[in-house]
Amino acid sequence: MGEYESAVVPAVDSTAADIADMRTRGAATIADAAAQALETQARASEATTPEAFRSELRAAARTLYETRPTAVSLPNALRYVLRGMEGETVPELRAATIARAEAFQRDLAQAQSTLGEIGANRLRDGDVVMTHCHSTDALACLEAALEDGKAIEAIVKETRPRKQGHITARRLRELGVPVTLIVDNAARRYLDDADHVLVGADSIAADGSVVNKIGTSGLAVNARERGVPVMVAAQTIKLHPDTMTGHTVEIEMRAAEEVLSDAERSDVTGGKPDDQNLRVANPAFDVTPPRHVDAIVTERGQFPPESIVTLMRELFGETTGEPWEP
Amino acid sequence: MGEYESAVVPAVDSTAADIADMRTRGAATIADAAAQALETQARASEATTPEAFRSELRAAARTLYETRPTAVSLPNALRYVLRGMEGETVPELRAATIARAEAFQRDLAQAQSTLGEIGANRLRDGDVVMTHCHSTDALACLEAALEDGKAIEAIVKETRPRKQGHITARRLRELGVPVTLIVDNAARRYLDDADHVLVGADSIAADGSVVNKIGTSGLAVNARERGVPVMVAAQTIKLHPDTMTGHTVEIEMRAAEEVLSDAERSDVTGGKPDDQNLRVANPAFDVTPPRHVDAIVTERGQFPPESIVTLMRELFGETTGEPWEP
Amino acid sequence: MGEYESAVVPAVDSTAADIADMRTRGAATIADAAAQALETQARASEATTPEAFRSELRAAARTLYETRPTAVSLPNALRYVLRGMEGETVPELRAATIARAEAFQRDLAQAQSTLGEIGANRLRDGDVVMTHCHSTDALACLEAALEDGKAIEAIVKETRPRKQGHITARRLRELGVPVTLIVDNAARRYLDDADHVLVGADSIAADGSVVNKIGTSGLAVNARERGVPVMVAAQTIKLHPDTMTGHTVEIEMRAAEEVLSDAERSDVTGGKPDDQNLRVANPAFDVTPPRHVDAIVTERGQFPPESIVTLMRELFGETTGEPWEP
Amino acid sequence: MGEYESAVVPAVDSTAADIADMRTRGAATIADAAAQALETQARASEATTPEAFRSELRAAARTLYETRPTAVSLPNALRYVLRGMEGETVPELRAATIARAEAFQRDLAQAQSTLGEIGANRLRDGDVVMTHCHSTDALACLEAALEDGKAIEAIVKETRPRKQGHITARRLRELGVPVTLIVDNAARRYLDDADHVLVGADSIAADGSVVNKIGTSGLAVNARERGVPVMVAAQTIKLHPDTMTGHTVEIEMRAAEEVLSDAERSDVTGGKPDDQNLRVANPAFDVTPPRHVDAIVTERGQFPPESIVTLMRELFGETTGEPWEP
Amino acid sequence: MGEYESAVVPAVDSTAADIADMRTRGAATIADAAAQALETQARASEATTPEAFRSELRAAARTLYETRPTAVSLPNALRYVLRGMEGETVPELRAATIARAEAFQRDLAQAQSTLGEIGANRLRDGDVVMTHCHSTDALACLEAALEDGKAIEAIVKETRPRKQGHITARRLRELGVPVTLIVDNAARRYLDDADHVLVGADSIAADGSVVNKIGTSGLAVNARERGVPVMVAAQTIKLHPDTMTGHTVEIEMRAAEEVLSDAERSDVTGGKPDDQNLRVANPAFDVTPPRHVDAIVTERGQFPPESIVTLMRELFGETTGEPWEP
Amino acid sequence: MGEYESAVVPAVDSTAADIADMRTRGAATIADAAAQALETQARASEATTPEAFRSELRAAARTLYETRPTAVSLPNALRYVLRGMEGETVPELRAATIARAEAFQRDLAQAQSTLGEIGANRLRDGDVVMTHCHSTDALACLEAALEDGKAIEAIVKETRPRKQGHITARRLRELGVPVTLIVDNAARRYLDDADHVLVGADSIAADGSVVNKIGTSGLAVNARERGVPVMVAAQTIKLHPDTMTGHTVEIEMRAAEEVLSDAERSDVTGGKPDDQNLRVANPAFDVTPPRHVDAIVTERGQFPPESIVTLMRELFGETTGEPWEP
Repeated sequence: MGEYESAVVPAVDSTAADIADMRTRGAATIADAAAQALETQARASEATTPEAFRSELRAAARTLYETRPTAVSLPNALRYVLRGMEGETVPELRAATIARAEAFQRDLAQAQSTLGEIGANRLRDGDVVMTHCHSTDALACLEAALEDGKAIEAIVKETRPRKQGHITARRLRELGVPVTLIVDNAARRYLDDADHVLVGADSIAADGSVVNKIGTSGLAVNARERGVPVMVAAQTIKLHPDTMTGHTVEIEMRAAEEVLSDAERSDVTGGKPDDQNLRVANPAFDVTPPRHVDAIVTERGQFPPESIVTLMRELFGETTGEPWEP
Repeated sequence: MGEYESAVVPAVDSTAADIADMRTRGAATIADAAAQALETQARASEATTPEAFRSELRAAARTLYETRPTAVSLPNALRYVLRGMEGETVPELRAATIARAEAFQRDLAQAQSTLGEIGANRLRDGDVVMTHCHSTDALACLEAALEDGKAIEAIVKETRPRKQGHITARRLRELGVPVTLIVDNAARRYLDDADHVLVGADSIAADGSVVNKIGTSGLAVNARERGVPVMVAAQTIKLHPDTMTGHTVEIEMRAAEEVLSDAERSDVTGGKPDDQNLRVANPAFDVTPPRHVDAIVTERGQFPPESIVTLMRELFGETTGEPWEP
Repeated sequence: MGEYESAVVPAVDSTAADIADMRTRGAATIADAAAQALETQARASEATTPEAFRSELRAAARTLYETRPTAVSLPNALRYVLRGMEGETVPELRAATIARAEAFQRDLAQAQSTLGEIGANRLRDGDVVMTHCHSTDALACLEAALEDGKAIEAIVKETRPRKQGHITARRLRELGVPVTLIVDNAARRYLDDADHVLVGADSIAADGSVVNKIGTSGLAVNARERGVPVMVAAQTIKLHPDTMTGHTVEIEMRAAEEVLSDAERSDVTGGKPDDQNLRVANPAFDVTPPRHVDAIVTERGQFPPESIVTLMRELFGETTGEPWEP
Repeated sequence: MGEYESAVVPAVDSTAADIADMRTRGAATIADAAAQALETQARASEATTPEAFRSELRAAARTLYETRPTAVSLPNALRYVLRGMEGETVPELRAATIARAEAFQRDLAQAQSTLGEIGANRLRDGDVVMTHCHSTDALACLEAALEDGKAIEAIVKETRPRKQGHITARRLRELGVPVTLIVDNAARRYLDDADHVLVGADSIAADGSVVNKIGTSGLAVNARERGVPVMVAAQTIKLHPDTMTGHTVEIEMRAAEEVLSDAERSDVTGGKPDDQNLRVANPAFDVTPPRHVDAIVTERGQFPPESIVTLMRELFGETTGEPWEP
Repeated sequence: MGEYESAVVPAVDSTAADIADMRTRGAATIADAAAQALETQARASEATTPEAFRSELRAAARTLYETRPTAVSLPNALRYVLRGMEGETVPELRAATIARAEAFQRDLAQAQSTLGEIGANRLRDGDVVMTHCHSTDALACLEAALEDGKAIEAIVKETRPRKQGHITARRLRELGVPVTLIVDNAARRYLDDADHVLVGADSIAADGSVVNKIGTSGLAVNARERGVPVMVAAQTIKLHPDTMTGHTVEIEMRAAEEVLSDAERSDVTGGKPDDQNLRVANPAFDVTPPRHVDAIVTERGQFPPESIVTLMRELFGETTGEPWEP
Repeated sequence: MGEYESAVVPAVDSTAADIADMRTRGAATIADAAAQALETQARASEATTPEAFRSELRAAARTLYETRPTAVSLPNALRYVLRGMEGETVPELRAATIARAEAFQRDLAQAQSTLGEIGANRLRDGDVVMTHCHSTDALACLEAALEDGKAIEAIVKETRPRKQGHITARRLRELGVPVTLIVDNAARRYLDDADHVLVGADSIAADGSVVNKIGTSGLAVNARERGVPVMVAAQTIKLHPDTMTGHTVEIEMRAAEEVLSDAERSDVTGGKPDDQNLRVANPAFDVTPPRHVDAIVTERGQFPPESIVTLMRELFGETTGEPWEP
């Protein structure tokens, strides 16, 4: 296929670079950009044969895919658009691809607010919600609840190491929600005051497991023990098709510096910053088994985690044993 | 009794001030200082009647007690010494009090190393121990295990907000123990690699509850779910006599600044630092019920938490409904 | 649409009145009456345009719907019939609507006995079944088991406040089933003698929760603790479509008099019947989470509660965020 | 010993009759009456030899014991007094017995209020307490909390079949406590609003089991599932010495009429009141295992249920394999 | 239909005899032979009318079915082939049946390796897997993992009474897998060293229960308690369609001699081999509820056990209340 | 002390040899023999000074102790006798030692039948008991229940690898108890028919853990899940004093041949009997945590496992950090 690679338009390369450098970030933003890039490629393509057109599009998809293959919304967007690339002629293929990309973007633009309304329905006036990390999907549920006129209060875990809880707290304060900020260690104590735990997801697996910011699984175990239901807000672009065939989600290990500053390290090691026996382990995510989650809220409705696989089959069909690649 | 108050010697006032200002801190250090102060009072007393002597000693005890009545080792030390103040004459009373104070200090000096040996016996060569916060009692167990020639590794939770895990990590590195430092959120993930959870205690209640640094109870719940035994190292000066009569242990709420710096607060509130609807809740401790703890290790042996009340009855006798005061 | 309202035939108003006054009661009876009323409306309609016909039918549906919108079988019946109202001309619309209503009634007439056979298959000869409240769906399972020649015994909870267990006991005695009647408080004790807990449902939510007579959830928790499987018998008219989009089921609060007679109230208040600080809380239903239920038996087969959402999607399609209304 | 039987004074017979006829009822009242009767016997005895005196007293004890041997406070009282019957001469024996009986009564008179203070210490200002049945020991805890100035609210289960919850509600209203009365079936729903479950006990076994009004164990299982601590208030006269040697506590089966009135029975049986296959099972008590109880509060302090055996050994010494009899 | 029975070809009878005598055994082998036999019947049929052809095929299916109706892969194979017997003429029917049988066999031949790849994806390099009994489906997962280059170790339970664990151990040793063989009693001890429990299934029920070799359920309960995930490898021919309508799977009771040799029996009974009060109970299988299983791996992907019913509905459609028979 | 070693009488050496060679086996038999040996030594001693006498006795104890230091009844017996060796003169020492040894043996002779009566009290007429391995203490409970006239049935696990369940079955058949023999894998299935699990113990630790035949802990976990209480019968000679100071009980690993015969090994390894990658792990015991045990029955009464430490403190006093040695 190599001959078509060069036909990838600069806009695709630019989008890919933005994703790779994390200038474009967030599951939905990445998915939107990827679909847009494929649309641009379709519009700009100078291919003269259907085969050439298809190869160009796949090349563009591959360029995008390779930037961050573990960000599940990216392959989900690419796959969705490529599956709609149908037709006998180049004009037909172009039109179909553009339409498909636009449909994807349109659905995506709508997904979060639909999800938010669905999630909001689970909340009652006066409820107290405990959050972990920052998730725009989770926030959309709270926003929709506020728009429904419900009074909501939040207990916000700071979410070490990166303290994204501060972002959540800021957004909630902007919305007028009273916020109690706590360290992650205080979660079990304040679960007694919470009516819901509400979190987002990095990705969701076919066995019902929820991959989300490190600390989610420990919180969910405590929520079950304290009798507080756990609700996960996740657009369907977070569903991980490869897990349908048993693939596990690789957990990113992040830099030690997020956990331990140089000054702190020096203090801990007594001034030996290269002490090999002081290891900092900083996984970005953990895996919460379905038995500790009560509901996954998507823009397609809410599901017990044990049933999300049926939505995945509906969306993706059956998949082969190998991970999908463009 | 007021007339004897003035007879309290300056050393007692000085000790009391040190405790109040937290220059003297740590359960054992406080207890030792308090016993020493009573001994000093006994030696310096110019009382001429047994009644006067007793009142002076009680006044001294009260002075000390009022500095930090919730630090349970302090009343434990005072009560222990006062209970030994027996005799018919001032010389007899003085001698008895001095002997009692010295005995208390002698036992105390020995307690941590005895406790350490007992705790070490629960550890096997090659074990991996997860710690929370910093506890010299817990550390004593690890030190004793190392002295027994056992190889031990540690997974050290940083323990927000004050990150005392860094102290633990430093001490363990000084002892040559390989350390993996993690944020508190990563605990459930790394429990799969741990053979024990080992923590200290702020105080221990008669219903078997363990009061310890915030985050202990959430860790213990997860340890039970993951099948990892939880061991609490606590000298008997941590046993809380008032809980025998149902009193609960008041949980100190600490400054918001430990959780949220001014800069962070400004960021969260969008520049309104006095936003009343952004509350920071910062409890210093939490309460772990006995069903999530496997053993409490003291210098008097190890106990299931449900049995610690029998040791308390042995040490303190039955107590009245009112909290003890000098 | 107001102009067509007057065209609603008297039979519809009469049916609506019967439902409102609870002369027509029971999920299946209400659903059957509603479908019949729509059929009557279709037959009697004097509409001359398709638009007018549709408006009349929707008006009739709305009239019925508003009587008891929380009785889920009512909107389920209305929606089912209206969805079949297809055609280009009034005669076509009329025929389609009548056929649809008849199909609904035919399926409904068959549903309980089919459900009963399916539920009976879970029971073995000699089994002891514990019941809560009175449910004709649950009873149908027992009847079918008896018809299969299985010996069944029953432990019947009286089910305060309205003691519908007495109805269950009477029906079971009529069927020749040996009955042990107990107060609700005795349930855990007699779970040791039971092979199954068998209950009906008021409605079933997309997150797998079972809304049923108050006391069901406490029984299910104890059944799990005692190792007794819990089986819920519920026709598909009990599945609650709005819950697919996160809506929760409102729990009816019933009259205090069901719990406390005037004489009893007078006794409790020392003769002050208007004592505002003696509140009687009398919720009609409670919510059992799916993890405490083993199987939901419908006329479409049995399902783990976590999978019932897939049957709901099959029956209702995806639903919008707003509750369905005619 | 038969020859001394006739020497039992009429007052003993009268007390025995009152206990047998349940004119004297309630664990403490029975115990007090029994001790008083032995004191009366001791005062009135005309025995001329120590042997005769002892036999008379034992005969009196036996007379009392046989009225309600399963009411554990009765043998506890008798045993306590008889164990103090020491001396060489009849006057010595008489004096010792009287003193012992008076001491028992004095302690008994104090026990409930001491217990109440201890239990009250577990309650905080603003707590909501769920009760089951009626227990003066449990009530004493609430009274003491109110006297301490704490605001307390109560959720009172009616406690079928005999609805002793009404008595509890009345007493609490007399004390000014806001009361929410619920049927037993509503307990799990309202546990979400409760900070404590507080119950009394009929008797407590050496394996930590709590024998109490039917429904207690099911409530405790739900309280554990909902994360609400369970507190049992029980004077030490409720501790059952025979259970130290493995004896189980026989559960009284009460009259069917408490559950099912004649009219109701006729309705259930379709007019066949002697239907043998309609059995009503009406156990008075059930057994809650220690793992579902957080604390047993006695006048001697609070204990985890797993440790109550140590208090029993302290109070009763070791017992032989056979149940104690006078 | 009797007139066509004689037209069943000898190859069908021969296959049936082999299945009945367990010369043909193993779920897949039986299913393959049954499909082959129907194909042979279709090829050899001398039927001259479509009706006769269909009756012959049904007769052949019935002959096969009756050999071991409880081996679920047998009716699954027969049903699959018969459902494809479509056409207007005998040649059409013959061709359709042959094609269907061949498709079934082709899929079957592929199923285990596809399943293996899916299962292997759940395993990581270095994992330790505990096995129970012998399952070629489970083994396929391990083989595929080894082919992926992952290092795997196994803890193999011997699996009394028939010690099929020895077969598993042999196969694993042939594959170069290091094996630790243990008695079944040692499972909980060695679960601490295992990353997965991996078992096969005899059949899988619509309520998510897994029917597998006796001992599976006890192992799964302990795995949950120890925090080890449980994975069931089962081709879709193990899915039990009758369970969709509530039918339970009958558990085969096997010969006492598998448990107790004659010599052992004589020893136990003191030489009375016909001692009726020494019963040996030897069930072949047990039932593991879905809450103790983490994933069911099939050739169609992995599923939480609570969702397997949706795959069954996809494969089998809705079934009637009566078990399927040809 | 070496000079007195030679004074150890031949009877002591002979007893030691019998213990070492396992001719003398069983906890009580070993303890009895050890006490007898010390008595013999005391009688035969020719020591002329108290110091010499004491040294001889300690030497004898050491000789005995070193045979099987992990059989906890042996040091328990030795320690008990040595602690009674009091006196000023050799005759006094001799008399005290003899009296102490005789008292120990007398108590020991009585202990099992007392324990049996206590355990029997927990059993009701008609109960079904599941056993694991063979324990004379457990058997004593069943015997006493039978003597009390209670009908008892037993489900006997065969207890691989050594199938000591056969011994239990034989003894129970001799007593007329109906026995159902099962493989260990069938335990969960038959727990549904059992009222109690009854096992013995190898030793019991201060943290409430029960060390018993491999398989006990897995059975206890399943019994808890199935709601069946677990009762451990263990004389106090099984209480392990060293565990009071945290020492763990070493688990004996036994010969592979108990698990895998040479023929089986050859089969598994394909004829390579020295295959190093086929490891057989055969631990003799496992450790059951107290939360899975309901009661420990001793001759001193029954105890929740969490309280057994208080009996140990009563029997042994506080112990030092080092294991006891003579």
